[in-house]
Amino acid sequence: MPGSRHASKGLDDVVVGTSEISWVGGETGDLVYRGFDVRTLVPGVPYESIAHLVLHGDPPESDPSPEVVRALRENERVPAAIERVVDALSPELPPLDALRTILSSLGDGSYGYPPRLAEGYRLIARTPVLLARFVRRTRGEPPVAPRPDLSHAANYLWMLSGAVPEPARAAALDGYLSLLADHGMNASTFALRTAISTQSDLVSAATAALATLKGPVHGGAPSLVSDMLDAIGTSDRAERWIRERLAGKQVFFGFGHRAYKTDDPRALVLHRIAREVAEPSRLALAESVERDVLAALRAAKPGARLYTNVEFWSAVVLEAVGLPRELFTPTFAVARTTGWTAHALEQARDNRLIRPDIEYVGPPKGREWPRPRSAR
Amino acid sequence: MPGSRHASKGLDDVVVGTSEISWVGGETGDLVYRGFDVRTLVPGVPYESIAHLVLHGDPPESDPSPEVVRALRENERVPAAIERVVDALSPELPPLDALRTILSSLGDGSYGYPPRLAEGYRLIARTPVLLARFVRRTRGEPPVAPRPDLSHAANYLWMLSGAVPEPARAAALDGYLSLLADHGMNASTFALRTAISTQSDLVSAATAALATLKGPVHGGAPSLVSDMLDAIGTSDRAERWIRERLAGKQVFFGFGHRAYKTDDPRALVLHRIAREVAEPSRLALAESVERDVLAALRAAKPGARLYTNVEFWSAVVLEAVGLPRELFTPTFAVARTTGWTAHALEQARDNRLIRPDIEYVGPPKGREWPRPRSAR
Repeated sequence: MPGSRHASKGLDDVVVGTSEISWVGGETGDLVYRGFDVRTLVPGVPYESIAHLVLHGDPPESDPSPEVVRALRENERVPAAIERVVDALSPELPPLDALRTILSSLGDGSYGYPPRLAEGYRLIARTPVLLARFVRRTRGEPPVAPRPDLSHAANYLWMLSGAVPEPARAAALDGYLSLLADHGMNASTFALRTAISTQSDLVSAATAALATLKGPVHGGAPSLVSDMLDAIGTSDRAERWIRERLAGKQVFFGFGHRAYKTDDPRALVLHRIAREVAEPSRLALAESVERDVLAALRAAKPGARLYTNVEFWSAVVLEAVGLPRELFTPTFAVARTTGWTAHALEQARDNRLIRPDIEYVGPPKGREWPRPRSAR
Repeated sequence: MPGSRHASKGLDDVVVGTSEISWVGGETGDLVYRGFDVRTLVPGVPYESIAHLVLHGDPPESDPSPEVVRALRENERVPAAIERVVDALSPELPPLDALRTILSSLGDGSYGYPPRLAEGYRLIARTPVLLARFVRRTRGEPPVAPRPDLSHAANYLWMLSGAVPEPARAAALDGYLSLLADHGMNASTFALRTAISTQSDLVSAATAALATLKGPVHGGAPSLVSDMLDAIGTSDRAERWIRERLAGKQVFFGFGHRAYKTDDPRALVLHRIAREVAEPSRLALAESVERDVLAALRAAKPGARLYTNVEFWSAVVLEAVGLPRELFTPTFAVARTTGWTAHALEQARDNRLIRPDIEYVGPPKGREWPRPRSAR
């Protein structure tokens, strides 16, 4: 291998370009959208305005962003040809598998290169509409059309349940969506940018992103936090459960992050949101588990910088909002369609094929097939 | 940015690990599968045996590989739940968009982590079955079931047309599929490995790969070669057409490759195959266009190492085999499901999250929202 090449299996030490969208300060515990600390935005600035900021670079003229509100309303009606595909999906399908096919089915041949903002609004608007449609089918319930008077977050809950959500729940989900709207470079955003780098289209790239988000190492684990809380049951059982699990060298879900070496700012804000909406007993359980797990991990590995990650408090908030566990990761994707759109547009503006090399370490050239080739 | 980090926008100079599957010798014009020069395998070694080699590392005990033949036969029958999704796709959909949804729809929740060879056989077997089913629906024709007595290549043509292909055509397609079965690291294989790196599943990863293959910079351009040959029309018009196009600074499709700085070995073999199956007049046209374009490009850019790439002769061969242009890139994907499976299995064997960083160059942290946040 020539000396000028850089070997890196996980690419952790490789910087694949520049971005103006968001900054993840792993050492300082920062998440910044276009210069705005997310802790100063959430709760309070609605998701529609966060989307405006992430997509355009500046805040809208008023909240919620009139442009985004209008664009989402205009795009929520889905063509019947796409609804037919969603209605053909087996109700047995896990929602995350269904969502991959839903995202792909949005691509009706009209998405081109370069990607356009209008295509992004279609993606952002239609993802929750079709996901909710699928979920209701799995319960044998007819679809619920979006309501133009509800926010993006409230509409999602409305389309899932057929009931207008309590304002506190809608606000909690709005905060969750805003906090998860973008997160610098990560595996799914990278897969999306790789797809765009071949001059593929936004729907294809978003499908690649979802396919990558699906892995539990990236987006697929928040429901395991809820399972863990259930397994512990009550606050007084936390310490013993944790001790036994630690002795068995098993992992704890919701702790540790590749980027953050301090508190994940999203976890801090989601904890605050959880205090507003979670059942008091569930909140108390989560708080004791968090405290006891961190104490146990720090005692077991002195010096290790282990903190609660976004999944822990996401699970508590999404539970409190009324979402079933199998929708936790799909809802993450609903939030992230905004960031994916921004990254696709940015990648296309100064595009270059993303294609690393791999070192071949197989048998050297020169092997011979053991039989004569057939004459053709 | 700390000095130990490596900046690379296209990752061209980054080596993302090791692989035993295939070697692309860009300087020497080599493509080697597991130690075998593809020029010694094609034509002659059937695709089923190539798949065996690529997946297992060694040739099968006889040709065509009994294991692969059996595995494909066993998996060609597709569950009705998946057929329903494919039958719900709009017949207006470009086949490449349809294929993305088809691949995703294969994921019925049964594909897990780590990926398994048996899942790979399902992917390889079902992709052409469902693609052919979709294509026939777009023509208003009923699906044609696969025949157990036909090869993978012949079956694909049979399922598309309902007629058993002439042996020469089936052999030509078999050679094409074998030559396109794998190609070291490339953007779609990289997207697939990135998806697997989060512990996502094979169907998700293959969907991400197809989404990335879709871009014309990677896999989406061979049909443009046919369009170019049509535009030129006859051999005697080639020189003038090329001169005018060169003066207009327009590109020629089918020439130049990021890896190869000499003849692409696949182009050489496909040219030989084209001599067997192409219409004499089309072959003559393609040969003059190739000769005249190379002469013109080399005269225009002395010293530039420009050669015919795989797309040029792929187009001529796939035309001769009877495939419509909109199936050229989908057929590339049919071939590549073998390589994708091998790379997914290899990535999972020694897995690590693939996640590069990006340098944030947006506004610094500290901006303030222009309005008070709503109290919630």
